[in-house]
Amino acid sequence: MLEKLYSKLEGYYDEMVSIRRYLHQNPELSFQEVNTANYIKSFYENLGIEVRGNVGGNGVVAKIHGGKPGQTIALRADFDALPIQEENDVPYKSLNPGVMHACGHDGHTATLLVLAKVLHELKDELEGTYVMIHQHAEEYAPGGAISMIKDGCLDGVDVIFGTHLWASEPTGKIQYRTGPIMAAADRFEIEIQGQGGHGAQPHRTKDSVVIASQLVLNLQQIVSRRVNPIDSAVISVGSFVAENAFNVIADKAKLVGTVRTFNEEVRSFIEHEIERIVKGTCLAANCDYSYEYNRGYPAVVNHAEETDFLVDCVKSVPSVQTVEEAELQMGGEDFAYYLQHVKGTFFFTGAKPEGVTIAYPHHHPKFDIDEKALLVAAKALGSAALTYKVQMEEVSL
Amino acid sequence: MLEKLYSKLEGYYDEMVSIRRYLHQNPELSFQEVNTANYIKSFYENLGIEVRGNVGGNGVVAKIHGGKPGQTIALRADFDALPIQEENDVPYKSLNPGVMHACGHDGHTATLLVLAKVLHELKDELEGTYVMIHQHAEEYAPGGAISMIKDGCLDGVDVIFGTHLWASEPTGKIQYRTGPIMAAADRFEIEIQGQGGHGAQPHRTKDSVVIASQLVLNLQQIVSRRVNPIDSAVISVGSFVAENAFNVIADKAKLVGTVRTFNEEVRSFIEHEIERIVKGTCLAANCDYSYEYNRGYPAVVNHAEETDFLVDCVKSVPSVQTVEEAELQMGGEDFAYYLQHVKGTFFFTGAKPEGVTIAYPHHHPKFDIDEKALLVAAKALGSAALTYKVQMEEVSL
Amino acid sequence: MLEKLYSKLEGYYDEMVSIRRYLHQNPELSFQEVNTANYIKSFYENLGIEVRGNVGGNGVVAKIHGGKPGQTIALRADFDALPIQEENDVPYKSLNPGVMHACGHDGHTATLLVLAKVLHELKDELEGTYVMIHQHAEEYAPGGAISMIKDGCLDGVDVIFGTHLWASEPTGKIQYRTGPIMAAADRFEIEIQGQGGHGAQPHRTKDSVVIASQLVLNLQQIVSRRVNPIDSAVISVGSFVAENAFNVIADKAKLVGTVRTFNEEVRSFIEHEIERIVKGTCLAANCDYSYEYNRGYPAVVNHAEETDFLVDCVKSVPSVQTVEEAELQMGGEDFAYYLQHVKGTFFFTGAKPEGVTIAYPHHHPKFDIDEKALLVAAKALGSAALTYKVQMEEVSL
Amino acid sequence: MLEKLYSKLEGYYDEMVSIRRYLHQNPELSFQEVNTANYIKSFYENLGIEVRGNVGGNGVVAKIHGGKPGQTIALRADFDALPIQEENDVPYKSLNPGVMHACGHDGHTATLLVLAKVLHELKDELEGTYVMIHQHAEEYAPGGAISMIKDGCLDGVDVIFGTHLWASEPTGKIQYRTGPIMAAADRFEIEIQGQGGHGAQPHRTKDSVVIASQLVLNLQQIVSRRVNPIDSAVISVGSFVAENAFNVIADKAKLVGTVRTFNEEVRSFIEHEIERIVKGTCLAANCDYSYEYNRGYPAVVNHAEETDFLVDCVKSVPSVQTVEEAELQMGGEDFAYYLQHVKGTFFFTGAKPEGVTIAYPHHHPKFDIDEKALLVAAKALGSAALTYKVQMEEVSL
Repeated sequence: MLEKLYSKLEGYYDEMVSIRRYLHQNPELSFQEVNTANYIKSFYENLGIEVRGNVGGNGVVAKIHGGKPGQTIALRADFDALPIQEENDVPYKSLNPGVMHACGHDGHTATLLVLAKVLHELKDELEGTYVMIHQHAEEYAPGGAISMIKDGCLDGVDVIFGTHLWASEPTGKIQYRTGPIMAAADRFEIEIQGQGGHGAQPHRTKDSVVIASQLVLNLQQIVSRRVNPIDSAVISVGSFVAENAFNVIADKAKLVGTVRTFNEEVRSFIEHEIERIVKGTCLAANCDYSYEYNRGYPAVVNHAEETDFLVDCVKSVPSVQTVEEAELQMGGEDFAYYLQHVKGTFFFTGAKPEGVTIAYPHHHPKFDIDEKALLVAAKALGSAALTYKVQMEEVSL
Repeated sequence: MLEKLYSKLEGYYDEMVSIRRYLHQNPELSFQEVNTANYIKSFYENLGIEVRGNVGGNGVVAKIHGGKPGQTIALRADFDALPIQEENDVPYKSLNPGVMHACGHDGHTATLLVLAKVLHELKDELEGTYVMIHQHAEEYAPGGAISMIKDGCLDGVDVIFGTHLWASEPTGKIQYRTGPIMAAADRFEIEIQGQGGHGAQPHRTKDSVVIASQLVLNLQQIVSRRVNPIDSAVISVGSFVAENAFNVIADKAKLVGTVRTFNEEVRSFIEHEIERIVKGTCLAANCDYSYEYNRGYPAVVNHAEETDFLVDCVKSVPSVQTVEEAELQMGGEDFAYYLQHVKGTFFFTGAKPEGVTIAYPHHHPKFDIDEKALLVAAKALGSAALTYKVQMEEVSL
Repeated sequence: MLEKLYSKLEGYYDEMVSIRRYLHQNPELSFQEVNTANYIKSFYENLGIEVRGNVGGNGVVAKIHGGKPGQTIALRADFDALPIQEENDVPYKSLNPGVMHACGHDGHTATLLVLAKVLHELKDELEGTYVMIHQHAEEYAPGGAISMIKDGCLDGVDVIFGTHLWASEPTGKIQYRTGPIMAAADRFEIEIQGQGGHGAQPHRTKDSVVIASQLVLNLQQIVSRRVNPIDSAVISVGSFVAENAFNVIADKAKLVGTVRTFNEEVRSFIEHEIERIVKGTCLAANCDYSYEYNRGYPAVVNHAEETDFLVDCVKSVPSVQTVEEAELQMGGEDFAYYLQHVKGTFFFTGAKPEGVTIAYPHHHPKFDIDEKALLVAAKALGSAALTYKVQMEEVSL
Repeated sequence: MLEKLYSKLEGYYDEMVSIRRYLHQNPELSFQEVNTANYIKSFYENLGIEVRGNVGGNGVVAKIHGGKPGQTIALRADFDALPIQEENDVPYKSLNPGVMHACGHDGHTATLLVLAKVLHELKDELEGTYVMIHQHAEEYAPGGAISMIKDGCLDGVDVIFGTHLWASEPTGKIQYRTGPIMAAADRFEIEIQGQGGHGAQPHRTKDSVVIASQLVLNLQQIVSRRVNPIDSAVISVGSFVAENAFNVIADKAKLVGTVRTFNEEVRSFIEHEIERIVKGTCLAANCDYSYEYNRGYPAVVNHAEETDFLVDCVKSVPSVQTVEEAELQMGGEDFAYYLQHVKGTFFFTGAKPEGVTIAYPHHHPKFDIDEKALLVAAKALGSAALTYKVQMEEVSL
């Protein structure tokens, strides 16, 4: 069965590439992916596959029912693009000015569509149900996953798999990780409300620049002293603005930053420690403040058994040369939400363009992927989808 | 002679007020005071007084030669206005939108013009020469004084007196101070050149926000630890800007601030200490920086004998009720330059509007003065001008 | 064979306990363990086992040659005690005032001696050679391992296994970890050489207290900003001393602290970053400093294949109920050196006293272990010793 | 009369020197000056001058009643020594090991005793009463002044004068200052109560070293930002102690320091600002603290009219060559208390040893004075005592 799957996928490689290039030329921003959603839906309709649009927004969910009873396995691909002006000089360059598939979601979608087509062709021999989750709005919080889940995309699902094309690693490599793999990514905003005045008369003011500077230094101690050193955490103040004439003392200073963590306990701890430090620093300075902490996506936490299973499974996928543990990634992903509801795992599929030593990073105007990686991703997901089922049955014996 | 002076000044009080109001309605920004300069020049021409325009820019210098030989005494009034929209509801409100005499220079000019008129009338009885220095551009560095001096306004001058109408003190009060009275006011700019990057990967960056925050705190130690506690000094960072997305670490942070000092030694020391601290902080952070220190006006340092003389002199001016030592003023004044060339003193003439408890501060859109203070200022300056001459002759016996 | 091993070990359980208790009553400090070394050596001599004393100091190494050819497998136990006054009220309480086996090394030694006795009894059936490394001075840098290695204890050894009785985990649990498991533990000392003086005249001094305080804060940024957030690292300043009269400014301040890391790259990076920050901070303060960084034990870094092997192996040891991944431990161990020379792994054997919810921590005056854990440790080490050989042969087919 | 006074003082110069040398050889520590007090008391008794011992401790007060009615004028000299081992090689070197007149109080006492003797000789011609206050314990808070005042030494006194021999200025110079001349000198103690623990586990501790370091930096802002820059103030942390093993995080850190100010408003402000900052810093760090602020002597604040009077008066004292304004002195003096009760002024009498470029500072083991300065001091105080009376009578006309 796996041989048949791989061989069919190889047969459709050109179609996969042409779908990816079509999407690449027609990128749409998060929450505005109407045409892309229609394109996906039509693809399924044309094949006579059961499909539902407008799932939790622009989401699309297709279902393929195997000929035999069995488990329900979900596969997910996201399809939104980024507000970036493409700088690649390729025939399939973005036609939408200022918008670009600079994160590989075009490839994710092409991979999943062709894999679905093949599963559909094999459906009589398959057991259980395959749910194709085409998710909108991964790039922009609150993201599409949370609303698609509310709209039922995981109903009846037993397990979910997803992958991200990963331009820093060569095609042929799969990276997995048990437990946390991608970080919770939050945003905070602190405004110091001091008291302005003449630069020559500091004693009649509460100098917001000094207070906020002290705060920035104090915040360093959360990571250096208060978080368990074996837990990874980052607190970065990205923006510090107190703009004034040179001889005027600032009444306000605004700090905006991000927090990255891998478990909920540390995340909540940091949220509260920041406030404690802001409060104490402002008490010492006799000034006021406002503090807002906005949670972005939670950490992507892979399930142990499903990850172990995936590792075994992809080791026997032809064209996978290396399977290795991924480093913790400080970036975020709303795949996190699916894994809070059902078992599963999220992995990286190497996609470094050929002949390149260091690939342009994700979200770069010159970002690109090796299209051969789409085939690797399709085989890996397909293999997991078919094999998982069987293994689980064995387990249930 | 003094009685005659005072009585004539009182006789011209209405003219003094009407000149002040005319100027108030027609304010001009620093270095753009063409009409004001013409107005002043015409005033002298109409009286047949020797006058020279375009002195070091828009400056105007008039000379009155006494009937008898003697010293040369200069009196100075500045005449530029500020980029402020007047908010007073008075009949003589500024007609020039966004420009306002919010520092009393209109009063200074009216005072000096009328005093000159009176001296001119008394000239046969006077000894020596009286130089009326009408200075443009006091509000904006590098100021008008320095170029007027270059253009000869102090040539042959033995002593100079100047006053500032002072809205925080009541009319009838004169404030003097030996040695430093107003601060040197400098400007500095520091740019921290770190290395930007993703907020989740601080180890690949040099975080400019953290480095600049540390720098702001380190700078506090100059005043708290390194300057002699009996010397007054201020270092204020007015502006701290490192603007970025919340999840991006800033590559640059820019600090702009001011330094106030009262003697050249402390001034130079601070200029170099700031650089030392910037250099060390950036070495510790392995990053680059740029540092610029721009000297504004030096401190106004009154000469001891001339100040003692002035105190004695104004004590006997009718309508002066209080003569007291002024506190050090952290603000700057380019009268400082005159005092680097000739002897003299600069003093404050109380001008708080009647019936007001706390006057609006200088440079405020609702700033105003008590016009009766013009008469006090004219008498004080006139008395100093006439008396100084006599005293000095006695000394030379 | 394993069955025979386990059964013999169980048979000698009472002896194991009595050896442990004897050692517990007669603890000796690191580098002073003469009697303990003699005790161990005699044990082997009495059994007719090849043994060498004074190996790299007080170390003892015994060898058991199997009847068939094969690999050489080392097992290590440390035998020094700590300068702690025991507070347990037990019949086998320390007889050496102020010295105590508060870290379980008495148990390690008893375990290895009895295991050796059993291997000796089975020797005709065994393949290869078994090296029993009884190491002195684990508790006190530079430790005994490094000198025993220099003195040949690892000559010819193919693989090494070691375990630590772990009082925080229940008997029956084994904890393993691939890669780093225990930290490199270093010590640094910084002396700020400012300039003292009268507390009322800071401008004539270089205030060491302020400079060193600033340094302490700056050091926080190494962990919070400069080390990769997925690498664990700790920098703690344990001691800050600048003692003076209240009205005297300190000329010197001394900081002493520790650094904990898990890989050599981060370790060296931190060593140099501390110096960079000290240098920059002192440049900013125009003062001198001295800086010393003393490396303690490196991180214990387990080899992947041997760890995987151990996990499989201990899963089938009777009386092992749980096998789980250990958390990174910030403490240090000189087992690290053996793993720099030969393959192997170091693991934890749960030894929480029965009926206790939270055990007293290691190095506590009331520290104790569950003696049943000695049997678990002996079986685990024995099983690894016998099985490893076989597996490796299979691999070499 | 003044001529007679000066000439008599000159006649007793040798006695003055020999008294000073006797006292120098027999120094006694603050609050232990029993022999010195007896010596002083006997001096008066031998002359038949009214004298009272044990005034507020070891204080001695003598009274000389003039032949005519008039005001009561007090003169004060202190007589305690310091816990310093003298390093001068002079014939009159201290005979009391570890105790030394290293601040000139021996000279103060000799000056006042001889001046009293002269006044006594002139008493029939004098108006009013002269009170000689010989004060013990100036060097050690709470000082002798406060208890002598309580014990009546100022009863009936109209004005007080005092001087300090000043080794940094040449003999023949008198330095005066209106308003504050010497600082209030206070002591504070802060203990940070964090939570100790293992240096490798900062997250289980509250690191007192980091918290106290942050506090030290935060305290800098009081002087740099919160006190009016034209007010002089100093806050110095002289001692920072948190002593621990290198790998243990400190549970406590103790800071001890001094505050110097020149007016009560700033003094109280700083006392409260320190607490505000300690409180806020500890809130931010979630730890406890204790804070104690102990007021030492208040600032010595000279009265304006008496200072003006003194300046005029000493200008005509023969052997006074220079009369100039003193800089603010950050050191303290309990003469401050007398000036809180009666009018008066405290001035410095230059006493730099001949042939020396820079004199050893007060409190130095090699401190010495030019004995000729005793005569200058005696004349200055005597002149003030006689002249003040007359002037005041004139005023009362």
